[in-house]
Amino acid sequence: MSEEFAGASADLKAWMLLHRTRDLAFRCEDRVVGEFGLTAEQYTTLLAMKCLDDPIRPTDIGQWVGHKVNTVSMMVDRMVKAGLVGRVRDLPDRREVRLVITKKGEQAFKPATAAACQLMKQILSPLTHEDKLTLIRLLDMLREKALEPAGPEVDIRERETCETRDTADMMKRLREYVSVSTADAKPQRGQKRKR
Amino acid sequence: MSEEFAGASADLKAWMLLHRTRDLAFRCEDRVVGEFGLTAEQYTTLLAMKCLDDPIRPTDIGQWVGHKVNTVSMMVDRMVKAGLVGRVRDLPDRREVRLVITKKGEQAFKPATAAACQLMKQILSPLTHEDKLTLIRLLDMLREKALEPAGPEVDIRERETCETRDTADMMKRLREYVSVSTADAKPQRGQKRKR
Repeated sequence: MSEEFAGASADLKAWMLLHRTRDLAFRCEDRVVGEFGLTAEQYTTLLAMKCLDDPIRPTDIGQWVGHKVNTVSMMVDRMVKAGLVGRVRDLPDRREVRLVITKKGEQAFKPATAAACQLMKQILSPLTHEDKLTLIRLLDMLREKALEPAGPEVDIRERETCETRDTADMMKRLREYVSVSTADAKPQRGQKRKR
Repeated sequence: MSEEFAGASADLKAWMLLHRTRDLAFRCEDRVVGEFGLTAEQYTTLLAMKCLDDPIRPTDIGQWVGHKVNTVSMMVDRMVKAGLVGRVRDLPDRREVRLVITKKGEQAFKPATAAACQLMKQILSPLTHEDKLTLIRLLDMLREKALEPAGPEVDIRERETCETRDTADMMKRLREYVSVSTADAKPQRGQKRKR
C-alpha cells in the first residue's frame, strides 16, 4: 500500500468516523432526552440558553448550536409553540426579541440534563483519562482549522463562544443539574474501565 | 482541581468538541458543495447512494446517513423535486421504490466530491498520520459504545454498514471522483481489510 493511499485512506476514515460518531451520539441524545418530551435539537437549544448570558437573541443560539438564522427561527417557533421557551420584547430596540426558558422548559431540562450526562459518561467510558485528553487535543486542532473554510458566517463570535464558554464555566452553570459529586460519578481509582 | 472534577471536565469538553467539530465540518461542507448547487445533506445522500449497492431504498439511505425514515422521506422528496435523484418502481414488491441518481445529480456530485475531498484534507492537515490513526482508534471506541444506547432503530444494519463500507471499498467506489492514484485504490485481493 503506497504512502499516498494510506494517507488518503486515513483521512477518509477519520472524516467519516467524525461524522458518524457524532451523529450516533446525537441520535442517542435524542432518545435519552425524548423521555422528557424534548428532541436533541430542543435540548441543545435549552443547553445553549443555560450557557449564554441574558439577553439571549435567536442569533446567539444560532452561533452556539451552529445553525443558520432561518433554521434557528423555525426551531424557536416550534419551541415557543411547545411552551418550552418564550419571546420577550423588552430590549431597547423593540424589533429585537430575547428568549427565555419557560417553567415547562425548565422542568424538562433538569432531568434531561441528568440523563444526557449519564449518556455522555457511558459513551466516553471506554476511554482512559489520557485518551480523553488526546481526543480533546486532536479535535481542537480540527475545529481550529475548520474555522477558516467555514466562511464569514462563522465569524469571530464562534471563536469567542468556544474560547469563553469553556468547560469550567459551563460546568458552573450546569452544576445544579448535574450530579458530579455523587458517588457514582467518581472516577474509579485504580480500577480498569470495562469495555 | 479534584480528580473527580478533572474527569467530568474532560468528559464534557470531549463531548462538546465532538459535536462542535463535526458541526463545523458539516457547515464547511455545506459551503463547499453549495458551489455546485447541493446542500451538505443532499451531498451526503448522493455519497451514500454511491457507496450502497443497488437497489437503494430510502431506508438504506436512512441507515447510512443516520436519519429517521420520515426525515429521509422529506429529504428525498426535495431531491426528486430538485431533479437530483429519481424514484423507480420496478422492484418485485411494487410498493417499494428504489432510488437512482439522475444525470443532473451526477453532474453535481462529481465536482462536489473533488471539492469535499479537498476540504477534508485541508481540515485534517494539522494532524500527523499518527494523530489520524489515534483519532480513528478513539472515535471508533466511542462509536462502538454509542451503538448500545442508540436503541433498536440502530440495529445490526448500522454495524454492517460501518464494517462493510470500509474505507477501501468506499475509495474504490469514489475512485473516479477523487484524485488518488487509481492503482492504489484497487481492492487488494487476498489482503485482509484493515480496520
